Amino acid sequence: MSLHVPRGFLFASTTAGIKASGNPDVALVEAPAGANAAAMFTSNRVAAAPVTVGREHLRASRGNIRALIINAGNANCATGADGLAAARDSCSALASLLSVKSEQIFPSSTGIIGVPFPTAKLVDALPAVLANRRDDKAAVFDVARAIMTTDTRMKTHSTSFSIENQEVCVLGVAKGAGMIHPNMATLLVYLFTDLDAPVAQLRRVLRPAVGETFNTISIDGDTSTNDTVVLMASGASGVKARTLGDELAFKKAVTEVCASLAAQVVADGEGVVHSVLLQVDGAPSRAAADRIARTLAHSLLVKTAWAGADPNWGRLLAAVGRSGVSLDPNAVAIWIGGEKVCDHGAAVPFDSVAVHRRMSEPSYEIRVQVGRGDGAARILTSDLTAEYVRINADYST
Amino acid sequence: MSLHVPRGFLFASTTAGIKASGNPDVALVEAPAGANAAAMFTSNRVAAAPVTVGREHLRASRGNIRALIINAGNANCATGADGLAAARDSCSALASLLSVKSEQIFPSSTGIIGVPFPTAKLVDALPAVLANRRDDKAAVFDVARAIMTTDTRMKTHSTSFSIENQEVCVLGVAKGAGMIHPNMATLLVYLFTDLDAPVAQLRRVLRPAVGETFNTISIDGDTSTNDTVVLMASGASGVKARTLGDELAFKKAVTEVCASLAAQVVADGEGVVHSVLLQVDGAPSRAAADRIARTLAHSLLVKTAWAGADPNWGRLLAAVGRSGVSLDPNAVAIWIGGEKVCDHGAAVPFDSVAVHRRMSEPSYEIRVQVGRGDGAARILTSDLTAEYVRINADYST
Repeated sequence: MSLHVPRGFLFASTTAGIKASGNPDVALVEAPAGANAAAMFTSNRVAAAPVTVGREHLRASRGNIRALIINAGNANCATGADGLAAARDSCSALASLLSVKSEQIFPSSTGIIGVPFPTAKLVDALPAVLANRRDDKAAVFDVARAIMTTDTRMKTHSTSFSIENQEVCVLGVAKGAGMIHPNMATLLVYLFTDLDAPVAQLRRVLRPAVGETFNTISIDGDTSTNDTVVLMASGASGVKARTLGDELAFKKAVTEVCASLAAQVVADGEGVVHSVLLQVDGAPSRAAADRIARTLAHSLLVKTAWAGADPNWGRLLAAVGRSGVSLDPNAVAIWIGGEKVCDHGAAVPFDSVAVHRRMSEPSYEIRVQVGRGDGAARILTSDLTAEYVRINADYST
Repeated sequence: MSLHVPRGFLFASTTAGIKASGNPDVALVEAPAGANAAAMFTSNRVAAAPVTVGREHLRASRGNIRALIINAGNANCATGADGLAAARDSCSALASLLSVKSEQIFPSSTGIIGVPFPTAKLVDALPAVLANRRDDKAAVFDVARAIMTTDTRMKTHSTSFSIENQEVCVLGVAKGAGMIHPNMATLLVYLFTDLDAPVAQLRRVLRPAVGETFNTISIDGDTSTNDTVVLMASGASGVKARTLGDELAFKKAVTEVCASLAAQVVADGEGVVHSVLLQVDGAPSRAAADRIARTLAHSLLVKTAWAGADPNWGRLLAAVGRSGVSLDPNAVAIWIGGEKVCDHGAAVPFDSVAVHRRMSEPSYEIRVQVGRGDGAARILTSDLTAEYVRINADYST
């Protein structure tokens, strides 16, 4: 696996005993010379303590971050004032070991909600995780593995681009397997670049990159309390993106990394067997297309038909009809895996064996043409399997 | 089973070969002296042909209906102009046999979407179903069984009330097992009374009765294309509800029948093991409470936790937070089966074994107090089991 590691960062993990499994559960990423950072957070009104503290620290440090400290196994959410104190104490302890200010530490947590945070376990593990710091690929993989919860695979992607013949690297590490929904859900995403970029530039690049990637995926329609995407720039390449063209190249690289991680998250969704790229066009407006796409992506009847590789376009049409968008059902056409299965709102002859075979593949496209409007939207989503139910009926998130 | 059958109606079923199983699939209810009728239909913009034709016939006949003709096995939806012709031809054929006008026949269909309607099978079965007409309980059960699709149990309920010492009867027959959602979904409900009631009174009574019962249940959030609730009054009791008090007694009886049928529908929901009565109060407004209740009722993570009888209040709190309602997470309190499990948005000590045991019963209540507002709402919903997925991945609706 070819992974580029940007200069100016150290990666490490250790086992603090927070995960019941006994697997590594604490990760650290340090920028020894500091880094500029921008972040985006969950839209859920119930935000976990590390989200609140992360926001505060970014503001207080004006985006100057020295290290991320991440744990899996406990989300530190719905933990009240004790949870906020736990997140702050964890940051202070690490800041003290690194001789920096507490607000230069950015915390993240994922795991079970509503259980008191084991601050002592995390703090006791800090010397071990600091001792493990390295700047190689294996250390990046350690981080990617330590932040997994119900994820079955670690998720990383890197790319590079050039400014005036000098290479700049962008690396991403993510976790996420359930509660995935537009507007981000138990999605922890860490993006690192060695570009020398001011905070304002990071913000300009991060927002649209997230909007085009993580905010157009959905597994189960639930939105987590802990979603966080952070972009850190160490500046260690010595290269700046001064021109509009250079910034666009940077944005393209960040978007590529985000798109890859988003697709990996959907493919590794809890119990997911099929990823489906839903394309809606011909709607009265972009908002209408988006509403239809999300109604389809969240319909249990649609998602279970996908689990059975059942070319049941009637369920798609019925979901389009209940989306709340004003439309003429007799104008709707539907394609599954490139094959037209419905036209003018009614059946057309199609090769159901071939479509069933197409729907048995790990990923395929479904297109819904609503009418003759200009509105289009797309969303990357998944089927709903009995395995999803088993995972979520048995596991306390 | 004590079932009252209102006077002035004949009930019958037969097997037309529309269901693949070979079970009875055509039902008839005739009011030999005619009946006044009111109906409510699906809010889905993709409405099945019988919904369109049923609406037309009620309008053309000014609510004077002689017979219902109902089939299961084919929904006659997304079938275009041919489907409309099929529904009209079926009604004409029955009207001709009964020597009435076509618009006095009210059609209903449930089953697979997008498959051409087998008009000939239905029409060929009309003499047989007419020959079976009877006014006894067994015939009512025949109707209740013939309209079942994935239902595992037939659904009936009756009650009676008195006006000036004369007994009036209200009987209901329903089917519905999936696609159940507020605003009604693959819900076919037929209500019969021997009250002598004008169409306007039937409408006044039906709307709030449906609003309080069928529109406050949800299994999977999908809304069918074929939902229909019809209330027919034969007048055969010779009794009128002239006073406000009498009309209230009638409304109470209709609402009782609807509430029982609604509860039966949820309990028989596809794969449903637990029915959950969700009560939300303390919200900023009734609309806000309703939005929170529906977000909870449709959250896959919440519904799968119920399947596992898991007192995972963190998922409830997270769903409250993403409902879009502006609220203070630190003011939220949650009770499961009467036991407080969360207060001020954080954990409180509770007997998790006792709550787990309570959640293992077929039905229980969950209360979410959002804050100190006046808004309250409730919804009767269900868990989401692996069995639901199996039913819907394997079966073409």
